[in-house]
Amino acid sequence: MTASARQVFAGKEAESFLTAVEDRLETLLEQRYADADSAFLERAAGHVTFADAAKRARPRLVFHFGRAVDADLESMVNIAAAAELVHTASLLHDDVVDTADERRGRTTVNTEWDNVTAILSGDLLLCFALQQLDEVDPRLVPSAVKVVEEMSRGIMLEVRSRKNLETTPAEWSSIAAGKTAALFGWCGGSPARIMDDDDAADRFRRCGRHLGIAFQLADDLRDLLDSESGKDRFADIRNGHPSHLLIWASRTDDAVYEQLDALWTGRAELTDEAVEEAADAVLATGAPERTRAALRQQVDRALEALGGYADRPGVRKVAGWADQLAREF
Amino acid sequence: MTASARQVFAGKEAESFLTAVEDRLETLLEQRYADADSAFLERAAGHVTFADAAKRARPRLVFHFGRAVDADLESMVNIAAAAELVHTASLLHDDVVDTADERRGRTTVNTEWDNVTAILSGDLLLCFALQQLDEVDPRLVPSAVKVVEEMSRGIMLEVRSRKNLETTPAEWSSIAAGKTAALFGWCGGSPARIMDDDDAADRFRRCGRHLGIAFQLADDLRDLLDSESGKDRFADIRNGHPSHLLIWASRTDDAVYEQLDALWTGRAELTDEAVEEAADAVLATGAPERTRAALRQQVDRALEALGGYADRPGVRKVAGWADQLAREF
Repeated sequence: MTASARQVFAGKEAESFLTAVEDRLETLLEQRYADADSAFLERAAGHVTFADAAKRARPRLVFHFGRAVDADLESMVNIAAAAELVHTASLLHDDVVDTADERRGRTTVNTEWDNVTAILSGDLLLCFALQQLDEVDPRLVPSAVKVVEEMSRGIMLEVRSRKNLETTPAEWSSIAAGKTAALFGWCGGSPARIMDDDDAADRFRRCGRHLGIAFQLADDLRDLLDSESGKDRFADIRNGHPSHLLIWASRTDDAVYEQLDALWTGRAELTDEAVEEAADAVLATGAPERTRAALRQQVDRALEALGGYADRPGVRKVAGWADQLAREF
Repeated sequence: MTASARQVFAGKEAESFLTAVEDRLETLLEQRYADADSAFLERAAGHVTFADAAKRARPRLVFHFGRAVDADLESMVNIAAAAELVHTASLLHDDVVDTADERRGRTTVNTEWDNVTAILSGDLLLCFALQQLDEVDPRLVPSAVKVVEEMSRGIMLEVRSRKNLETTPAEWSSIAAGKTAALFGWCGGSPARIMDDDDAADRFRRCGRHLGIAFQLADDLRDLLDSESGKDRFADIRNGHPSHLLIWASRTDDAVYEQLDALWTGRAELTDEAVEEAADAVLATGAPERTRAALRQQVDRALEALGGYADRPGVRKVAGWADQLAREF
């Protein structure tokens, strides 16, 4: 999330809510990893859990959608903390799968510790999340398990799409759903769920899913367009991630397909120059406009899903954030 | 489980129950991995799930304890299938953690496919197990999550105990609890749980846990004593697993400690002769008698836990099996 989008999505109340979520996560990791034998797991889990603190998009969704249905603060904090644990667990397994060394400038757990620690602390965090949810409302557990299933399937597809230009737009969507949309949707719907407001739960869940896809499209755009973000630019080309833009460009223009395929199959050397050239070729196909349009469509659908709830205070915040995300690109 | 113990524990009804569990697992894997993208996961999960079919100790426990409280067959099949899925998921993650090439003579999923497949199909199987249980009775889900937590902690401890002769008897127990006893206990208690028989659920759970520890002690004994089983003998010494016997022997006799430590730290070469010599030294300490006594104690506690339920038909089967396990060594 960029600074400007974050501002729209924030506000004083949201910030104090996030602090409460932060505290809950800290207490939870301390308690659950209390014995000396697993103190290293607490550090490993904390390494990932707290690295991402600046964003906390999922807790923000829980907070704003929770306010819209007057959910109690305590339950919202617990739902948000559980969402962060599920998210962290997936990052831990994802990094082993990826054999990633770094995530947003920090070394990964599998590198700083080892695969064992990453796999097992991921498994444990998932257990803690489900246990936490069972205390809030047992009905939230099956939907969370369903999210984990979708996330696992998404990671699996993503692995198989690596350096594979045959990846289809439909596969891109399934990956985005697993990586982001499933959990975003769950964060949107869960507060209304415990308030027994099924209509709101369904609408907020759908809104959250569309936002998740939009979020992922923005991420893909940023990699090719945003020279100022901290992420290393053109990482998608360099690492063989078929982003929304790369898929569209290579399906539209055979020369671009050839250029990317040569880099991804090792037929061409992956120099900085070659990567920049490929990026320029992708940009020249009009892929950014196509992805921008897709992003706006997802945001529109997210807003449509809100129906009569669009004017409630928390919901207005989410809508404003979505709007900002669409206007940014 | 040896052939003789298996006979005691079996019977015609049990066998047809196991066939039903087998069918359920097959249907479940087929349905859940229906799409073409994940068909390879079905094969990977099946590779592990069905390799172990001859034993199926967990479904047997569900069946016999379920009969004792007149649980309906359909629920019992589902509980047993879920237990096998949890068991399989832990084997999949365990093999990645272990970087194991073989499990009981078959190549592991991480070797035949890769780590990705092993981690993600493990994550998915766990999701399927919890979803299955939610359909039987939502109250079974939190207890299953607790089991997964204990299993993960057990694997973690086991990894840290590898080639480590400082592993304490208490740590051995925690590892055995995570590897076997937690899920055995859950299998024992769950059928009574859904029948709202809390007293039976608690007793059968405790009985199952003691049986799990006994099972693990038998496994440790077998590695040093049983020359006829298919497993490669002295694997514990060769692979640096501090079994119950190795821990006891090395704490009792400094020379044995030195001998094992030299092999595990690489100061001595791990030849077949050196391994056999170390095994002879361990046997000479009286470790087998000590472990046998521990096994008998666990079986006694398992039987004690049954209280007034000891005479029920299914329970008698379990008691007979326990007794056989104790007499075998």
